[in-house]
Amino acid sequence: MSRRLRLGAFMRPVSIHTAAWRYPGAFPDANFNLDHLVRFARSLEAARFDAFFMADHQAVLNMPIQALKRSATVTSFDPLTLLPALAMVTERLGLIATASTTYNEPWHVARKFASLDHLSGGRAGWNVVTSGNPDEARNFGREEHWEHAARYRRAHEFIDVVKGLWDSWDDDAFIRDVSNGVYFDPEKMRVLGHKGEHFSVRGPLNVARPIQGWPVIVQAGASEDGRQLAAETAEVIFAAGSRIEDAQAFYADVKSRTAAAGRNPDHLLVLPGAFVVVGDSDEEAREKRARLDAGVHYDSAIASLSVALGTDASAFDPDAPLPENIPETNASKSGRDRAIGIARRENLTVRQLAQRLGGYGGAAMVGTPKRIADEMQAWLEGGACDGFNIMFPYLPGGLDDFVTKVVPELQRRGLHRTEYEGRTLRENLGLPRPANRFFQPA
Amino acid sequence: MSRRLRLGAFMRPVSIHTAAWRYPGAFPDANFNLDHLVRFARSLEAARFDAFFMADHQAVLNMPIQALKRSATVTSFDPLTLLPALAMVTERLGLIATASTTYNEPWHVARKFASLDHLSGGRAGWNVVTSGNPDEARNFGREEHWEHAARYRRAHEFIDVVKGLWDSWDDDAFIRDVSNGVYFDPEKMRVLGHKGEHFSVRGPLNVARPIQGWPVIVQAGASEDGRQLAAETAEVIFAAGSRIEDAQAFYADVKSRTAAAGRNPDHLLVLPGAFVVVGDSDEEAREKRARLDAGVHYDSAIASLSVALGTDASAFDPDAPLPENIPETNASKSGRDRAIGIARRENLTVRQLAQRLGGYGGAAMVGTPKRIADEMQAWLEGGACDGFNIMFPYLPGGLDDFVTKVVPELQRRGLHRTEYEGRTLRENLGLPRPANRFFQPA
Repeated sequence: MSRRLRLGAFMRPVSIHTAAWRYPGAFPDANFNLDHLVRFARSLEAARFDAFFMADHQAVLNMPIQALKRSATVTSFDPLTLLPALAMVTERLGLIATASTTYNEPWHVARKFASLDHLSGGRAGWNVVTSGNPDEARNFGREEHWEHAARYRRAHEFIDVVKGLWDSWDDDAFIRDVSNGVYFDPEKMRVLGHKGEHFSVRGPLNVARPIQGWPVIVQAGASEDGRQLAAETAEVIFAAGSRIEDAQAFYADVKSRTAAAGRNPDHLLVLPGAFVVVGDSDEEAREKRARLDAGVHYDSAIASLSVALGTDASAFDPDAPLPENIPETNASKSGRDRAIGIARRENLTVRQLAQRLGGYGGAAMVGTPKRIADEMQAWLEGGACDGFNIMFPYLPGGLDDFVTKVVPELQRRGLHRTEYEGRTLRENLGLPRPANRFFQPA
Repeated sequence: MSRRLRLGAFMRPVSIHTAAWRYPGAFPDANFNLDHLVRFARSLEAARFDAFFMADHQAVLNMPIQALKRSATVTSFDPLTLLPALAMVTERLGLIATASTTYNEPWHVARKFASLDHLSGGRAGWNVVTSGNPDEARNFGREEHWEHAARYRRAHEFIDVVKGLWDSWDDDAFIRDVSNGVYFDPEKMRVLGHKGEHFSVRGPLNVARPIQGWPVIVQAGASEDGRQLAAETAEVIFAAGSRIEDAQAFYADVKSRTAAAGRNPDHLLVLPGAFVVVGDSDEEAREKRARLDAGVHYDSAIASLSVALGTDASAFDPDAPLPENIPETNASKSGRDRAIGIARRENLTVRQLAQRLGGYGGAAMVGTPKRIADEMQAWLEGGACDGFNIMFPYLPGGLDDFVTKVVPELQRRGLHRTEYEGRTLRENLGLPRPANRFFQPA
């Protein structure tokens, strides 16, 4: 059997593309409609996805009101409130929620994920973030966001405390001895007694040890601090989409950091984001993408292009090609070169380029199911990933295209399961169940 | 039509009686078994209960390990994680979760309850507590619990901030204008900008205004501070069970405080806890209760009796009547007199009295469905309550007895609905939908 792809579905927002809600036939309220979300979760389970993955912010997105008013993300369910509901309409699909270590307490995070893990029969995952949106600070009593290094120091300790709370009870602590009236074995209750730089947390947690031992730990940080935190503590990395060469370098780097941290590199899975637009022909797929990008309002689009180029693009003719000789500035050279490269390669007008960047500017796979499967296979076999977090261009159409067209092609090649291997998210991802830190075998 | 009882079900713990899990035929894991909890919720909805009500602690109960090890409450689902799951298997039942204002942030509480309200179609309620369990402090970085008055000052501001966040969006803010690419009307987004003694919270919340405007606000405080907070901000009071005369005085007091606060007293419903043991004869009901109390371990029981009497009861003959001439001490005279009164009235041995107090020492209704309905009717018509929060003695038996025997008797008398009046918890409770504080009618 060939090695298989792990497939997550990036579902908050349900589409990362800012104009997804305007696509012909799309559900404009897909991001905030329970019935739709239930339908999506069931489709993903039928397609044997590993997990439903929800990003999160503790604020509306930090953008000017003229752009914000066009965003479908301003009203979104809290992930840890939605996922228990979706647990009731699915049986095997993993349920990964984002929770910040910066504006939270370890007790709350430990307790909610432990509860979700029990309610879902062992399908919970925690995407650990340190809050990239600086506006979150102002919803939690601070004028300024914590700086990057401080957030990561706090995250290290936070994760350690949460894992310690999950280990509050041995797996067999609850004996429920009716005849003697003993509910649990006191020897199997573990009081954490943590006192550290950021937190003092006594424990024990008032929830039994999670079915998975610990919910699966997911992270997305790409910075030096982020990579190191992931290597030491994460089991899945949600990586940024990029060129395969960059992805290979990233993959090699985090796997080697994981080994250096004394862990088995196979126990850290790297899943880059993949924005996938499927057509029955490559031409049809490109047309879908162009139609989607055309829904990005020009005000937002041109602002994104100006940022990418490091120069004010609002004076350019929207319907002409990008001018030659864009000046170099202090802005990111790679971002500028990438934008110019896209425009030249795809022969885009200024408007089209601006809408591309303002819609979803990251790496994409666009084409027939065969082309997409080829590309995914090349990444998997080329040491660039262990699978992907799929981003759907619009919903339900983009999701339906993926599960009805790409998934069967991947299954035909042996690159994707046709049945779940196990009952828990860990079992399906091939990750070990962690030992309880307090447990000493007799 | 006569005035009707409002009925909540006190479901965390599923039974407040410490030996409920040992009762013959009971589910020992009822408190932490999703399948059982789903069954209970469906039974309550079929019986047209107003709400499923979950207490909560952010710690295991503060008791010695020798008593704690006999408690079924040490592992319990987080209410805000369980209730979204139960929302998926019910349609009209209200879903009330406890969340503390002392060890939480207003943003998180606002967001999770708003999400639950949307997911459940307008059935969420927030039971506001200030954390009665002092051990919670040690799970949140403090050696000592906040003192009572400070907790209540914080609670006032906390509730105000949460309501302000719920009002972040006008009810019709989300226009989703596909053709013009405008998702919401910026005039209808409201930035709270709160800066107070305890909290600085900018907003807006990233969830649409709850279906109910605000989830129903519930409180349980009986102290002077608690009553005043409830009169100013609550819509339901979960009151302690007591004698009808005390309940009448409490009812009159909080209704008059509510009027004095400029509110309609009908918009604050008073629901005392009622521990109900049903039998086909009064004798059978008393036997059930005696069997239940007999499950309380004597170590825990005698400790409870010693506390109630203010004297060490461990030297008393367990199988003899309570000695005459229990000395008066500094302990609560009312608690001592009450304990002695129960022993004399019911002719209990020391062991039986101790087990009564160690199981559930509060007020109870024990007898035939007719006797219980008579008592509830007398409370309702006597100005002692607007309904009850029912506490089941053990599960499933005690719950099944109530819904199959007492509920039909209440319905026959017109004291309980046979169909829900509305779709939301507010509609069923007869509570108005609050206006948005920011909305100025044109």
